[in-house]
Amino acid sequence: MGNQSIKLTVDAVVFGYEEGVISVLLIKRKYNPFKGKWAIPGGFVLNEESLEQAVERELEEETGVKINYLEQLYTFGKPNRDPRERIVSVAYFGLIRPNAFKIFASTDAEEVAWFNINELPELSFDHSDILEIAIERLKNKITYEPIGFELLDKKFPFSDLEKLYTTLLGRDVDRRNFRKKILGLNVLDELDEKVSKGSGRPANLFQFNKKRYFELKNAGIIFEI
Amino acid sequence: MGNQSIKLTVDAVVFGYEEGVISVLLIKRKYNPFKGKWAIPGGFVLNEESLEQAVERELEEETGVKINYLEQLYTFGKPNRDPRERIVSVAYFGLIRPNAFKIFASTDAEEVAWFNINELPELSFDHSDILEIAIERLKNKITYEPIGFELLDKKFPFSDLEKLYTTLLGRDVDRRNFRKKILGLNVLDELDEKVSKGSGRPANLFQFNKKRYFELKNAGIIFEI
Repeated sequence: MGNQSIKLTVDAVVFGYEEGVISVLLIKRKYNPFKGKWAIPGGFVLNEESLEQAVERELEEETGVKINYLEQLYTFGKPNRDPRERIVSVAYFGLIRPNAFKIFASTDAEEVAWFNINELPELSFDHSDILEIAIERLKNKITYEPIGFELLDKKFPFSDLEKLYTTLLGRDVDRRNFRKKILGLNVLDELDEKVSKGSGRPANLFQFNKKRYFELKNAGIIFEI
Repeated sequence: MGNQSIKLTVDAVVFGYEEGVISVLLIKRKYNPFKGKWAIPGGFVLNEESLEQAVERELEEETGVKINYLEQLYTFGKPNRDPRERIVSVAYFGLIRPNAFKIFASTDAEEVAWFNINELPELSFDHSDILEIAIERLKNKITYEPIGFELLDKKFPFSDLEKLYTTLLGRDVDRRNFRKKILGLNVLDELDEKVSKGSGRPANLFQFNKKRYFELKNAGIIFEI
């Protein structure tokens, strides 16, 4: 296939969660096409690096964010998605706590910023499609994998977990059932510590038990919320 | 990125289900590398076609099977997965009833055949990895989408559905609970027709109600088994 002229890029959809708001990390493009427009961070794969190395490198170069638990989302390959030439992009996604990372633009990015996913700017290329699929996957995934725990403090009151799920699912949850279901999964340890928040009674703190989670998962127990 | 030298292929993992056996469609390679070895059907993406067009074309060319409901599985991009050069492959998967299709090898395929997924030959490239991930996805997917119904006759006794799930999940299901759960989903119509199978009593036939399924799905009802 000496005459195949398709180039390969990677894109990183990084979501942040904080206090009931889901946001996404975007860059303002420094060069054409779409100069001055917002876009998902990403870029061309180098010949010798894996796709995962490429996406981590591009994300760090453009935004300063260094993470190594991005998960492959989907590959976007419509023939005219890039005005320059045929470019196929492998998109990845991840979830972080924005306040745990410092962001700063460099290389192809003129600016970098977090945007509330309900108040997005106009995006470059087919990046709205990519983001839409990423949001769908995020909402779906949280119902069968405990990815949400990475977004909470190490020790958290149960109400924080409830708020996270309400936000990510985009709907209210039945509080009693949710508590029963989550505790029934047997992956949370209730600690002998309390926290006071707002005007309510002090609430017990919980901690995610990763070891038990992986034991259950390896034993074929399905985590379903 | 004029100096990026990465080529792009697509691969089609096509599963078949018949009478309690899951099989996968493989081709024997006519040319090097891996000449004479079995592989997942696939090939290079042409410059002007979408990834979906590419995978459907390659599948039909190599195996004679023409289907248009392949779903994207994962993109495989380890730098040395192909001994020729850097080749990244976007893998797709689908599920069919083998007896509804005629298979015949052509172009790059010397032979084409169905293999029981528990009795696989040695595979070319990283195709064992691709197949492993496809099998995992299949088992996972069947728990939240009714893909299984495409594999049964249009009208079927409940025991056929149970057998299908037992096979795909690779474990027994609790028959009473399974029946209750499936019927509770409200996507099966019980017909006024019976069928006699083996020595048992004649059993009622069921039919999948696609319209109702999509109504429920669009209303946000999650299909979970």
